[in-house]
Amino acid sequence: MRIESPRYTERFGSVRINDVQKVLELDAGRDKELPLHEKIAVQKIEENTIKDIEEKMAIVIPIKDEKLQLFEGVISGIPHECLIIVISNSQRKGVDRFKMEQDTLNQFCHFTRRQALIFHQKDPVLAQALKEADYPDLLGKDERVRDGKAEGMIAAMFITMMAKKKYVGFVDADNYFPGAVLEYVRCFASGFSMAKSPYAMVRILWRYKPKISAGVYFKKWGRVSEITNGCMNSLISHKTGFETEIIKTGNAGEHAISLKLAEILPYASGYAVEPQELVSIFEGFGGVSPMAHPTAAKHGIEVFQIETRNPHLHEEKGEQHLDEMLLLGLGTIYHSPLCTEETEQLILSELLQQDAINPSEALPKPHLSAPLKKINLKRFTEVMEKHVKSYSALEGE
Amino acid sequence: MRIESPRYTERFGSVRINDVQKVLELDAGRDKELPLHEKIAVQKIEENTIKDIEEKMAIVIPIKDEKLQLFEGVISGIPHECLIIVISNSQRKGVDRFKMEQDTLNQFCHFTRRQALIFHQKDPVLAQALKEADYPDLLGKDERVRDGKAEGMIAAMFITMMAKKKYVGFVDADNYFPGAVLEYVRCFASGFSMAKSPYAMVRILWRYKPKISAGVYFKKWGRVSEITNGCMNSLISHKTGFETEIIKTGNAGEHAISLKLAEILPYASGYAVEPQELVSIFEGFGGVSPMAHPTAAKHGIEVFQIETRNPHLHEEKGEQHLDEMLLLGLGTIYHSPLCTEETEQLILSELLQQDAINPSEALPKPHLSAPLKKINLKRFTEVMEKHVKSYSALEGE
Repeated sequence: MRIESPRYTERFGSVRINDVQKVLELDAGRDKELPLHEKIAVQKIEENTIKDIEEKMAIVIPIKDEKLQLFEGVISGIPHECLIIVISNSQRKGVDRFKMEQDTLNQFCHFTRRQALIFHQKDPVLAQALKEADYPDLLGKDERVRDGKAEGMIAAMFITMMAKKKYVGFVDADNYFPGAVLEYVRCFASGFSMAKSPYAMVRILWRYKPKISAGVYFKKWGRVSEITNGCMNSLISHKTGFETEIIKTGNAGEHAISLKLAEILPYASGYAVEPQELVSIFEGFGGVSPMAHPTAAKHGIEVFQIETRNPHLHEEKGEQHLDEMLLLGLGTIYHSPLCTEETEQLILSELLQQDAINPSEALPKPHLSAPLKKINLKRFTEVMEKHVKSYSALEGE
Repeated sequence: MRIESPRYTERFGSVRINDVQKVLELDAGRDKELPLHEKIAVQKIEENTIKDIEEKMAIVIPIKDEKLQLFEGVISGIPHECLIIVISNSQRKGVDRFKMEQDTLNQFCHFTRRQALIFHQKDPVLAQALKEADYPDLLGKDERVRDGKAEGMIAAMFITMMAKKKYVGFVDADNYFPGAVLEYVRCFASGFSMAKSPYAMVRILWRYKPKISAGVYFKKWGRVSEITNGCMNSLISHKTGFETEIIKTGNAGEHAISLKLAEILPYASGYAVEPQELVSIFEGFGGVSPMAHPTAAKHGIEVFQIETRNPHLHEEKGEQHLDEMLLLGLGTIYHSPLCTEETEQLILSELLQQDAINPSEALPKPHLSAPLKKINLKRFTEVMEKHVKSYSALEGE
């Protein structure tokens, strides 16, 4: 893979936010030593380097009643060396869709000779393990993991820790193009290979997100992304005193985190999860408040934003969730201790303009779960390991 | 890449037509020795094997006034080791679109450090070289290469021969997904790696070709493909006496040929070019007439049909060309010396049913150009080489 070198980096305390880097070439050929003059503008990420990182990476696919054809396509695009972790909150009563997902995954793994894990979000063992390991933050009143993509993502990160992986990436299950999924994962690996700090995050920016109505229109920015990015940049600008447009991936669902970083961040529920990750990084390491983690602060936190070559084409879920996404995303910024009055005003005026809030309404405060490191991983692993066969795709062969 | 093993092969004289093989996994991980039991059902094509073939392959992109964004995406998806050959018949008067294509290609090659060639179909030197090399078949009355995608493809194959490549593949310039283009080329390489004969062809079958109207419908078969394949299968069935459905890629635009095979086939004009390739193979090596090329017949001709994981989404050109495509494609079968009365009747009734022909109308006979080996390659190269700098993307750097 060939990718632009980071041409501009914004610093905020010990956070280094790299400007968008575009993918130039999906396949950059055989491993070779490059003449130095190319490296100025372009990075060639060698196949071997990518595979070294993929071996240490789990790819989490949260799924909820998605079409099985799309799910099958998505898993076929995930590089072989990655561990696939599916966290499903699909229907089990009546038509057992979770069972169908299991079957699809098992068949795929059977023919491709690879390992994968699949869990249901409401699995009693998973809930029990979290409880016994002193991490009840994800559990609802019924003593099961609560609904929500964010809760599934967090549970899957514990599995990633249990599997001793160094990186975790997230990919949605409703992507139409396996080739785009492959590119996301290669972007994750390329980002980590460029990182100088073990505390790193890679967020994907889509080149286009085609809108389908009569014809195809290659839209670059969605409304929600544009507003969220704008408000997040306002947050940074008013702290540093220099206006910036550096954040372009505030809502990035496709993203990856090094486990070292993942373990020390708190996580928000619902659609707030992705923007909150950035807000938590700014709060913890922006240098305004005391550093949240001295070792991480010493290494620095690195954020990469990588623009794919493939457009993003996925199942349309309608417009309803967009307002909720906007509201919850902006809530993470609004309620941050870093948020100045200027940014508060900007957020309120954007929300009113979008008719996403009533003038008398308060902004929802994100519900935060504790950083992952709070868990007793040994205990979690002990409880889960007894049942690991039932989660594993190649078992019984 | 992981791909199904050829499970069924139909033999027609010395032609071996393999049934469709599906791609299972886009990235099959590091090179390893496989335990034998997997090979029964699945072939893992190692990265090294793929790259060995890509180094010997030219990818031809015929282009005619396509959107530059799409063209740029397509070239970014072609594996680095392949030689890119663009053959353009785009507008030069007024807005010089050819110049814009050249600029796009040059910029891409500058940053990715790769070699590419770009020619205009009406280039006077190209016409002169063809004339002096005793291959005037492509030239029109104005002593330039005639219009038509097929003519461009043939000219590009001579360039491929000049560049001493072993394989040539064709990819359209209007594909929306660079990741799909990457998969096509990897399928080409995978097919050639499975071939036992140096006379081989790989044809791509799309998993889905989404139809966009209000929503997205994942269509598998188009009307034209279904009819063309049916008639081609009828042609074979009535010669062998066993009904077959083996041909599923009669119209495949995305396909690749080993140069050894490419050099001994005649080529039809226009939309007839892809179906005619198969018809010519059946005529030359089906064993009904004397073998067209004894050495090739001895090795056998191998046809692979590979089904991609990615859907095929490209620029919609409207419905008009579909009838022409149908008519010209069926013309290649109808006018073949192999065509029996049953198949003739089938073709006529299909065309009447589709309103693609009048009852009194005769079917168009394909216009055939001589096999490539007729050219005086030495002379062609001599004329072209003097100007090769002006065609080459990295020249002047």
